[in-house]
Amino acid sequence: MIRRGLLLILSSPSGAGKSTLAKMLMAWDPTIRFSVSATTRPPRPGETEGRDYYFRSRDTFEDMVVAGDMLEHAEVFGNFYGSPRTPVEAAMLAGQDTVFDIDWQGGQQIRNSALGRNVVSVFVLPPSIEELDRRLRGRGQDSDEVIAGRMAKSRDEISHWAEYDYVLVNDELTDTFCQLRTILDAERLRRDRQPGLADFVRGLNAEFQAR
Amino acid sequence: MIRRGLLLILSSPSGAGKSTLAKMLMAWDPTIRFSVSATTRPPRPGETEGRDYYFRSRDTFEDMVVAGDMLEHAEVFGNFYGSPRTPVEAAMLAGQDTVFDIDWQGGQQIRNSALGRNVVSVFVLPPSIEELDRRLRGRGQDSDEVIAGRMAKSRDEISHWAEYDYVLVNDELTDTFCQLRTILDAERLRRDRQPGLADFVRGLNAEFQAR
Repeated sequence: MIRRGLLLILSSPSGAGKSTLAKMLMAWDPTIRFSVSATTRPPRPGETEGRDYYFRSRDTFEDMVVAGDMLEHAEVFGNFYGSPRTPVEAAMLAGQDTVFDIDWQGGQQIRNSALGRNVVSVFVLPPSIEELDRRLRGRGQDSDEVIAGRMAKSRDEISHWAEYDYVLVNDELTDTFCQLRTILDAERLRRDRQPGLADFVRGLNAEFQAR
Repeated sequence: MIRRGLLLILSSPSGAGKSTLAKMLMAWDPTIRFSVSATTRPPRPGETEGRDYYFRSRDTFEDMVVAGDMLEHAEVFGNFYGSPRTPVEAAMLAGQDTVFDIDWQGGQQIRNSALGRNVVSVFVLPPSIEELDRRLRGRGQDSDEVIAGRMAKSRDEISHWAEYDYVLVNDELTDTFCQLRTILDAERLRRDRQPGLADFVRGLNAEFQAR
């Protein structure tokens, strides 16, 4: 039966696990698309154009926003981030789900957009701030100052937990992933995501009529 | 974490499998409560007071409605049916889910009641009308006239499919049951069903403050 693709928004403070969860989702179901963000920030070591981000100049980014090519965008630490619209709309119509690894600002904008009714939003909380701090330091890439800034942003991010449909406490990664899968499996079954049902019921009615 | 119990409304035309699915749910998770309806119709062979129905006189039933003791009620084929309110509210507060095996009229009333935000509604469709007819006759209990009346009611029931959150086509019972379990598992994870989350986030904020 034809299904409309949904828009799964994953938000969490940095280090709570949303990127890992997004990768696990796509390994589990390769039909799931990851919404690659555009950004004006420079690439970090190991990051690849088109896989991790679309790296754009500030001018190009602003042109895309003006042209309506961004489903959402926001400024974080002086850099712009945004989700290109066209691939998301194409996937939706093709019955393919898209995962967004974005913050609360992006989440709000997509929820309030024309595509809002296709959104399923999940907020991932760390089990504790101590654990969040440990995970951030574990990356070993960033200075204390950067980590302190990210912790401040984490606190701001967490303050938006109540805007999400689902909230998961990421204590054990495997458990959290199973919960996320369950959410996606169930949301795919929602009536309003299955436009083919109307045809199916028309068929049942024709059968009644023919008796 | 404390959870608010949800109200799972299962509706379907007679013979599409909702009663079997309700029984399977309760065998899977014995904490799930079945909402036993009150009715003014006489017991059928094998039906037990308090397990299948609360059998009540018309006078008693009407008194209960007037006293506000019914969460929903409707007249079907000249008999009244209704869901007693008190046990449902008690279960909800205790974090216990309640399953309702009721028709679209009852579903509408509960959705529009003060408890409406705790409702998850699932409509079960038969794979075909031929199959529905076969399942109804398979019971071997009822006359052709009764079956014809029930088929007319089935058509009316099916016309309300689009009022439900989820719609399942019950082709293979085991598949449909797994889908139903997935829906229940996911709905239990919704933010607004977990009032304990607010305390948890307060704890995280206290941790931030203490740093």
